[in-house]
Amino acid sequence: MRVSILVFDGVTALDAVGPYESLRRLPDVEVRFVAAKLAPVAVEGAGFGIVPASDFAQAPEADVLVVPGGGAAGVKQALGDQQTLQWIRHGYERSRWTASVCTGALILGAAGLLEGLSVATHWRAKDYLHLFGATYSGERISEHGKLMTAAGVSAGIDLGLRLCELIAGRDAAQAAQLGMEYDPAPPFDAGSPHKAPSHIVEMALKGF
Amino acid sequence: MRVSILVFDGVTALDAVGPYESLRRLPDVEVRFVAAKLAPVAVEGAGFGIVPASDFAQAPEADVLVVPGGGAAGVKQALGDQQTLQWIRHGYERSRWTASVCTGALILGAAGLLEGLSVATHWRAKDYLHLFGATYSGERISEHGKLMTAAGVSAGIDLGLRLCELIAGRDAAQAAQLGMEYDPAPPFDAGSPHKAPSHIVEMALKGF
Repeated sequence: MRVSILVFDGVTALDAVGPYESLRRLPDVEVRFVAAKLAPVAVEGAGFGIVPASDFAQAPEADVLVVPGGGAAGVKQALGDQQTLQWIRHGYERSRWTASVCTGALILGAAGLLEGLSVATHWRAKDYLHLFGATYSGERISEHGKLMTAAGVSAGIDLGLRLCELIAGRDAAQAAQLGMEYDPAPPFDAGSPHKAPSHIVEMALKGF
Repeated sequence: MRVSILVFDGVTALDAVGPYESLRRLPDVEVRFVAAKLAPVAVEGAGFGIVPASDFAQAPEADVLVVPGGGAAGVKQALGDQQTLQWIRHGYERSRWTASVCTGALILGAAGLLEGLSVATHWRAKDYLHLFGATYSGERISEHGKLMTAAGVSAGIDLGLRLCELIAGRDAAQAAQLGMEYDPAPPFDAGSPHKAPSHIVEMALKGF
């Protein structure tokens, strides 16, 4: 079983690493980061670079394709790049599952895969979905057959574990969760705009 | 405010990226990955490489130092490397906070920083702490003044948000949580050995 996770300049690191960290734990599953070119890309925040394992031309066909999101500039660049969209459409057709994390949903939308669907994305990006014929589900993960979308950033971990279950079954997915010691204990209950106080939502709309 | 996150061959990607993703959202905080040399390191699982922003020689002094863990081979290599341990000791002395994620605690231990303390680490690594004069707290995060340790892998996200609170206050930390949409919804309740069924613990002890 092969999993390809797209990376591009401005990708949000945790969007990509959340699914990576769960899926790579499965036996007989190879997970690799794939970029348009075999050269480092800068993550959002510019704190480090990512060296992909493959470029589009050399990446083996993937059973699972994951498209993470990124900062506004990075996503705008990715969803306007025809080579990237073509690679996603091609990968989607051949995949067993194709999934987005965060604003990766907008990239799937630009590839024409979200028409008529109710999907998850980062809460701050929900008003862009209509550009691609989609609506906002408000769910942590939304599933439509082989197409899956997850909410913002950290939701990629939950998505990764759901994919582990689909690929290898419930026991293996639970073992991957335990391997990651994913027993979350956020110090606050402010992880969704419905839970955070309104002044925190205002702060988060301006940045963060 | 400057944050340095150590990376080394075999580092567990999420150990490093969890704190990165929360801390980089704070205003006036620069977060960078630092390695011994200015060359890519391979993450555990080999799905991609990380290009550090600085090497030890060029990294600016950090207010916050974060030491992630890694696979057995990577951690063994890191905690036996005198240059790495010296860099950590030097950084610890000058830092306001020094923190580990997962088996990064063993590296802090080898640097001599855990003597007599009850600390957090990955549940599978707890029996190694006595080698460094430390005991296992079983907590998600353990704090001893400026020294903080977190449990396995995903606990780095919780640690990152706690550091956000210490650095920039409760509101900014909550805004960072909301920016990451960190409203976790694991599909199973198997994230700690006390919660997972015993056959899952057995599976996770053999791998994952």
